[in-house]
Amino acid sequence: MAWDTEKTKTLLLDAATAEFSTFGLAGARVDRIAAAAGVNKERIYQYFGKKDDLFGIVLARQLAAVMDEVSITGNGIDAVLDYAGRVFDYQVAHPELARLTFWEGLERDEPTALESRVAGGIAKVQRLREALPTLAEDDARELLLTILTLCDGWQVLANMDRVYTGTVERSAKRNAARRRAVLATVEAYTRELVG
Amino acid sequence: MAWDTEKTKTLLLDAATAEFSTFGLAGARVDRIAAAAGVNKERIYQYFGKKDDLFGIVLARQLAAVMDEVSITGNGIDAVLDYAGRVFDYQVAHPELARLTFWEGLERDEPTALESRVAGGIAKVQRLREALPTLAEDDARELLLTILTLCDGWQVLANMDRVYTGTVERSAKRNAARRRAVLATVEAYTRELVG
Repeated sequence: MAWDTEKTKTLLLDAATAEFSTFGLAGARVDRIAAAAGVNKERIYQYFGKKDDLFGIVLARQLAAVMDEVSITGNGIDAVLDYAGRVFDYQVAHPELARLTFWEGLERDEPTALESRVAGGIAKVQRLREALPTLAEDDARELLLTILTLCDGWQVLANMDRVYTGTVERSAKRNAARRRAVLATVEAYTRELVG
Repeated sequence: MAWDTEKTKTLLLDAATAEFSTFGLAGARVDRIAAAAGVNKERIYQYFGKKDDLFGIVLARQLAAVMDEVSITGNGIDAVLDYAGRVFDYQVAHPELARLTFWEGLERDEPTALESRVAGGIAKVQRLREALPTLAEDDARELLLTILTLCDGWQVLANMDRVYTGTVERSAKRNAARRRAVLATVEAYTRELVG
């Protein structure tokens, strides 16, 4: 029954995403993932391998989702700002992505799903340079790192935000203010790069 | 023997810094900290309390060190760039600071040493506005968040750098290139803010 297998896999991957996002790679418990999904733990090993492999599969799935959903469309600086704004909004709506990204950064020396990520990265750099033809390749790479670092960082550095702005609970208003600041940063830097 | 107590505390805090930086709060082991310091584990509880308290003390100590060592001096945009460059260099020289910052972001809902950090944050915002008198207070806060997010993020997002730039090992050359990109970002954004 192929349909049941796919459904079981999805249940397990959703439970694993929540578990890894909350506890990271070392802190995640396969038992808890199985219990949350209501699936026998042996299935996890059978379908996905060991915990480290499962973490890689979970992160790769989240990265594929954001690659699918958030792309650079159109041309000119407005296209870059539109993209950065949608990256920001996606991260706010899916905080597990940034959390998984930073857990990986802290806990794994080797990137998950390196080949597909590099292919996605190259495509993104190319698309950015189509949108801004005078942008040098190295600058395009730095600009993408800047956009992603600011948007990802915003999800994980709530304590830093609290220290500098007094924000205790993230509100729509605070998200909107930080979004404007990130886009103003990206716009000023992009204008500088394209002259 | 007061001197021995201070020496023992320093040995323990140094060992705890390395342990928490590598493994985070949940993953750190008090046994390993004691063994690395060559000190009986009971001393840790006696001097610093439980593991969670020790994490807070370790991070607060690292934050106090960077506050002491890296301040905004002088005036004008050059002073901001000089500060941002020194933050970047400090983070490169002390990668444990960014790692601890992100572990805290991922693992603790409440900031460590909130009061002293808020006091330090307020002082930094004030000093930044002395350096740039036309900078609005909210903008000063966002600018500081941007500088710190970019510098901290650089230490932890090595995998993202690998994906976008092919960097496998961090080199002095790669650090210098990213430093230029961060400073160009900060300069462009600051110029925009101060008109």
